[in-house]
Amino acid sequence: MPRLVDHAERREAIISAAWRLIAARGIDGINMRDLAAEAGYSNGALSHYFSGKDEILQSAFEHVLVATNNRIAASSHGLRGLRALRKVCLEIMPSTEEARLEARIAISLWQRALTDRQMESVNNTAVREWRALMARHIDEAVADGEANACDAAVQANALMNMMIGLQVSAVLDRGATTRKSQLAMLDAAIDSFTTDHT
Amino acid sequence: MPRLVDHAERREAIISAAWRLIAARGIDGINMRDLAAEAGYSNGALSHYFSGKDEILQSAFEHVLVATNNRIAASSHGLRGLRALRKVCLEIMPSTEEARLEARIAISLWQRALTDRQMESVNNTAVREWRALMARHIDEAVADGEANACDAAVQANALMNMMIGLQVSAVLDRGATTRKSQLAMLDAAIDSFTTDHT
Repeated sequence: MPRLVDHAERREAIISAAWRLIAARGIDGINMRDLAAEAGYSNGALSHYFSGKDEILQSAFEHVLVATNNRIAASSHGLRGLRALRKVCLEIMPSTEEARLEARIAISLWQRALTDRQMESVNNTAVREWRALMARHIDEAVADGEANACDAAVQANALMNMMIGLQVSAVLDRGATTRKSQLAMLDAAIDSFTTDHT
Repeated sequence: MPRLVDHAERREAIISAAWRLIAARGIDGINMRDLAAEAGYSNGALSHYFSGKDEILQSAFEHVLVATNNRIAASSHGLRGLRALRKVCLEIMPSTEEARLEARIAISLWQRALTDRQMESVNNTAVREWRALMARHIDEAVADGEANACDAAVQANALMNMMIGLQVSAVLDRGATTRKSQLAMLDAAIDSFTTDHT
């Protein structure tokens, strides 16, 4: 009897093999045949797992979200306050080559999300979770006396929007968005919370 | 003798009539016939002014940039320091219905810019100018004693990236990105520069 999970597992294996190709060439620049070849499937077998390119793009975005959340969980484990906040932001920021590829997937998805409510929803769910996580760590920093009293929801929203903007800039405007300049922006943002302002 | 400027003028008139349609339905959701009808031209006449949809999208983006820069010039005229910085950001932020439509054009263009160097360049030129303008006003604020000493280039880059993120959020994640919440984020960002921190 075939296992029921096979279908979901195989979809994930295909995306895991193919998302870099989608990122590098853009969803408009590849066809199902290219993706099938990258994943080691025949064209016909691929269409058994994905109805079309929109479904593949959304799955690639979800794959990127899972990877990011795994990095966040690993790097912020056991931390709280501003140290945890910094780790969360570092994992969302596109400061490595891998994360720049992930940002390309996000930019493709946002354009499709202009007219696709399901893609919009996938994006917003991730953003909402990250914003809540940032707000929690800002609240911890205030409670611990690390940060000035502030409206953590507003500050987390502002920081999250900077993270979203960096996805665009790190891909299109690399010269102004090197790893070094991203770290300087993050440090400035985190410093603005701290109580040692003069 | 036909005037040499006619061609450019007519292109601008067409885009001026049609950019809201591009924003509302997405560049992928319309064809040349829809655009021609919106601008009051025949399909054949439209193709005399634009080679295709990519050129139309880029022209719509440039139209939005000109509109934004005109608003910036009008609202920040005669101001300097943090007051000028606030005006610049207010005009870039997508806090009105008109500006939300403009943000949709930007999101469409960024996706095409992933694989089109000219679109990338149009975007980066605008971002570079705005970032420099923001840095100048931050430097003024420091010189006038309004703001703490800081690296104005880093702060302007961070603020510019928040503005870019807001273009995405105001369109896809409206509930978290109302006009009121955008103003709260801007106030928090401007406040972080001021010298009256406790």
